[in-house]
Amino acid sequence: MPRIAIIGTGLIGTSIALRLARSRIAADLEIIGCDRLRDHAQDAERTKAFTRVVRDPREAVHDAPLVVVSTPTLAVRDVFETVADALAPGATVTDTASTKAEVLGWAARLLPSHVSFVGGHPMAGRTESGPKAADAALFEGARWVIAPPRHTDPAAVDLVTGLAYEMGATPMPMDAHEHDAYVAAISHVPMVIASALFRLARTSEAWPELSALAAGGFRDTTRVAGTNETMAHDIIETNREQILHWLDRFSSELGSVRALIADPARADEMFRYLQQVSFDHDAFMRGSVGRTEIDANLPVFDFTMSDMLFGGALAERGRQMMRQMEDRANDPRRAERRER
Amino acid sequence: MPRIAIIGTGLIGTSIALRLARSRIAADLEIIGCDRLRDHAQDAERTKAFTRVVRDPREAVHDAPLVVVSTPTLAVRDVFETVADALAPGATVTDTASTKAEVLGWAARLLPSHVSFVGGHPMAGRTESGPKAADAALFEGARWVIAPPRHTDPAAVDLVTGLAYEMGATPMPMDAHEHDAYVAAISHVPMVIASALFRLARTSEAWPELSALAAGGFRDTTRVAGTNETMAHDIIETNREQILHWLDRFSSELGSVRALIADPARADEMFRYLQQVSFDHDAFMRGSVGRTEIDANLPVFDFTMSDMLFGGALAERGRQMMRQMEDRANDPRRAERRER
Repeated sequence: MPRIAIIGTGLIGTSIALRLARSRIAADLEIIGCDRLRDHAQDAERTKAFTRVVRDPREAVHDAPLVVVSTPTLAVRDVFETVADALAPGATVTDTASTKAEVLGWAARLLPSHVSFVGGHPMAGRTESGPKAADAALFEGARWVIAPPRHTDPAAVDLVTGLAYEMGATPMPMDAHEHDAYVAAISHVPMVIASALFRLARTSEAWPELSALAAGGFRDTTRVAGTNETMAHDIIETNREQILHWLDRFSSELGSVRALIADPARADEMFRYLQQVSFDHDAFMRGSVGRTEIDANLPVFDFTMSDMLFGGALAERGRQMMRQMEDRANDPRRAERRER
Repeated sequence: MPRIAIIGTGLIGTSIALRLARSRIAADLEIIGCDRLRDHAQDAERTKAFTRVVRDPREAVHDAPLVVVSTPTLAVRDVFETVADALAPGATVTDTASTKAEVLGWAARLLPSHVSFVGGHPMAGRTESGPKAADAALFEGARWVIAPPRHTDPAAVDLVTGLAYEMGATPMPMDAHEHDAYVAAISHVPMVIASALFRLARTSEAWPELSALAAGGFRDTTRVAGTNETMAHDIIETNREQILHWLDRFSSELGSVRALIADPARADEMFRYLQQVSFDHDAFMRGSVGRTEIDANLPVFDFTMSDMLFGGALAERGRQMMRQMEDRANDPRRAERRER
């Protein structure tokens, strides 16, 4: 029976298992979970999402055509080292870590050539972590970045794309470095800002009053300060340059607004700034995201994950997607644009 | 029949009216709404919360023992000027503006001595504005800052405190300058930060990709960038110094985190920083706010708003509250502490 191994049964790994367990192909699948933390393994087992949960990653990946690594980012490297010579020939390995360039580097160095690695990153999460917070609907409507190395087997890209679809997500093929630049801007830097703002208030001598008065605005703006520290640490360790780049751009933007605020003679200009931000923000919240070009590039996926797991994969779509990505990655205007 | 005039039928004014209209005392009350914007007045009328909605503030306040001004902050001054000689002798005037020191100054200069002004600020809101977004439950569980000038009639303080209770909120007596310092930290600076972060991403050439990838973290952190521009502008115009003070402290905190991130040799220190923030944030989200001293200072309120509107006010509580506030405001350690 086809087997999917999920290494790391935290929020993401267990949510994937829950969704798979409720899918059309569940009856024909073995879903093997694996976690080194006894608590996580036990909590994951209680969700009934897994066929079984083991402690040894080498045992978990045995005979599995698809391996999903959902540990904290730095632990992905250790998992690769541990399972490398236990992976089934022809297996597809993917991950769900928050950064992609380093992970692709580890895969290239540590995994055997008889398996295919395709990076993945579901753009969903919550500040709660662990299997108890898992939710089969976690990925519903989210983007799922697919970041294959160059020259990957297109069938492996298809399989991981199929997994994203099976999760209710929209796959979004993307170069790993491009991904890391983007998530620095919209995920990692917001986390750093939220942490700094929360800490500023928390360490103020007025914290008793501040915390009593804090309403929705403070709670929303600082929500991601609650990110699990291991996750936050690993993100910073594996995406340091991009985070610093966007942090400096943010400081510069904040300096411009400060100058507007500080000068009463520029009140009209400040009003127009606030008006533009509010207008654009409303459009964003009403769903004005992306643009036609991006959505036209999204893969049209007319076959299922089970086609691939159970044989009969149509790899043509995977090849097309890879070609498009390479064209995009080779376009010098794009490389420049993502830094601006 | 006792009359409450609500000048400004936006989100806050109409939410107050909706809650009053569902209260035990509704049958004995006239609730007069007033808005200069025809759309707002019409939408407010459609909520059925008001006995009637008029366009002339002088007509609205006629014979009203309680007047609530819920316009944008700078418009409060205009309302005071317009209604000053139409207010009923003995009336209590309050407001719901986001800053308090300027408003108290306008009240002292513009309102006649035969009325009492007590500043108010419900710590609740949403980024949507206007009467259509109004909600009788908006203030449920929120703090409602009560900021009377020195030497106000304690019965007026009681009446406004009673209004806050009637709204389902917890009244929190506070000096106006103290209030402005606190809300700069937990409301105004978060708004500026959210706007700068949103604008940085929005004006990036990579916005199509950034917006497509943006998940909950970005949406939460930038949510208050959607604040109505008039509201945001008026907040900045009336609380400039405190906003600049806390913005500079935030930049300094952000600079410290940047230094931690930039130096791989300080990874352990960074981990402990993230761990402490995450730990404190969890405690905050679980409801660890304020402290015993603050809550012990909250007024115990054992009589109702209607006691006061309909006569028979017990002003002793109001006097006690004022004394406590003055003691607090005169404590030099507190004045110092709110700047740190």
